[in-house]
Amino acid sequence: MAREIEELQAELRRFAEERDWGQFHSPKNLAASLSIEAAEVLEHFQWLTEEQSRQLDEGRRQAVAHEIADVLLYLLQLSDKLGIDPLQAARDKLALNEQRYPADKAKGSARKYTEL
Amino acid sequence: MAREIEELQAELRRFAEERDWGQFHSPKNLAASLSIEAAEVLEHFQWLTEEQSRQLDEGRRQAVAHEIADVLLYLLQLSDKLGIDPLQAARDKLALNEQRYPADKAKGSARKYTEL
Amino acid sequence: MAREIEELQAELRRFAEERDWGQFHSPKNLAASLSIEAAEVLEHFQWLTEEQSRQLDEGRRQAVAHEIADVLLYLLQLSDKLGIDPLQAARDKLALNEQRYPADKAKGSARKYTEL
Amino acid sequence: MAREIEELQAELRRFAEERDWGQFHSPKNLAASLSIEAAEVLEHFQWLTEEQSRQLDEGRRQAVAHEIADVLLYLLQLSDKLGIDPLQAARDKLALNEQRYPADKAKGSARKYTEL
Repeated sequence: MAREIEELQAELRRFAEERDWGQFHSPKNLAASLSIEAAEVLEHFQWLTEEQSRQLDEGRRQAVAHEIADVLLYLLQLSDKLGIDPLQAARDKLALNEQRYPADKAKGSARKYTEL
Repeated sequence: MAREIEELQAELRRFAEERDWGQFHSPKNLAASLSIEAAEVLEHFQWLTEEQSRQLDEGRRQAVAHEIADVLLYLLQLSDKLGIDPLQAARDKLALNEQRYPADKAKGSARKYTEL
Repeated sequence: MAREIEELQAELRRFAEERDWGQFHSPKNLAASLSIEAAEVLEHFQWLTEEQSRQLDEGRRQAVAHEIADVLLYLLQLSDKLGIDPLQAARDKLALNEQRYPADKAKGSARKYTEL
Repeated sequence: MAREIEELQAELRRFAEERDWGQFHSPKNLAASLSIEAAEVLEHFQWLTEEQSRQLDEGRRQAVAHEIADVLLYLLQLSDKLGIDPLQAARDKLALNEQRYPADKAKGSARKYTEL
């Protein structure tokens, strides 16, 4: 696993221990939190057109960065609790997607994608 | 940014380009995808007690790993489109949380937390 | 469809028209809003145990009622745009579930459920 | 409350009792289910443009109707457990929104909206 990821997970473990928050951090609760924070990312794009979403002003971009941070922090804590290496899982999934969606067949089509 | 993260983002960029999927990957759509995949993580815990969620069998753990991978892959693509360094954002947010929830006051209480 | 539902949908149509908000209310956007508001319902239960969630205090119960209202308002608007009768769809789905989960086999088991 | 809603809630109560599923149906779990099903609605619109989402083909429309049904069924069960009248809550919220977003000021602007 990337050293930076492991360091951040160690920081999060210490943070939760100091506050005695381990009792709240069941994988079930962390998964709910992940979903809640992801919705907060989406909220920033709720009424924007796709085009507008490609041209965020700096204030909005910073706000989105904060929500992305929350998603990542919960994702790292959930992975840590379950003994999952998130980067390795992502690499494995990407390799699988290479097979599932051959470039020549999937080109320019969102159809295959929607069959996920 | 961590080298492993940058490599994965470069892979994702190449993957999308080869399939001409950039047209679908507006930040708005990627944010929706992030939220959809986070719900798929949660789905695995939907009917488990918190206690059961702490003791997943290996099959379930692998399935959750795949969904966590999907969340991370969208998070990296969204960050890439917006020029956000997700690890740095996470570190900044954690530092902020240290101030917001002083260990002595937040100890064992989920109350502060719910005021987020 | 229930008269009360139709009345509420007519009210929502008028509300959006008066504000010229039809342009924002594509089914895609309404579906995103539905998901965002559902996450806000969940947020109230994020750090509660299941037991605590069965015994909400009155303040929390009122707050949840407001979020449930938001979910229903978007659900009615989305249904209206798509020409779907939500109550009829719900009755049809419940009838389908009766067949899918025979009472004698599904008794006390969340397993069948998780195969949804 | 609308008679049709009450009838559906009574059906859902009977359905859960016959399967001894009350143990799984804590408000916390029902709120998670609501969020998961709302994400399944959104999934149908994930890669569509807003324009395409306004012109669903019949197959897609039916599939969305099934997911909307699931959202409504969980919303009715959650409301029932918490003693909330969802239609009344929705009417109250709409009245509140009338005050919050005066038609003359909110006209054609999604800005106010995003301040929700």
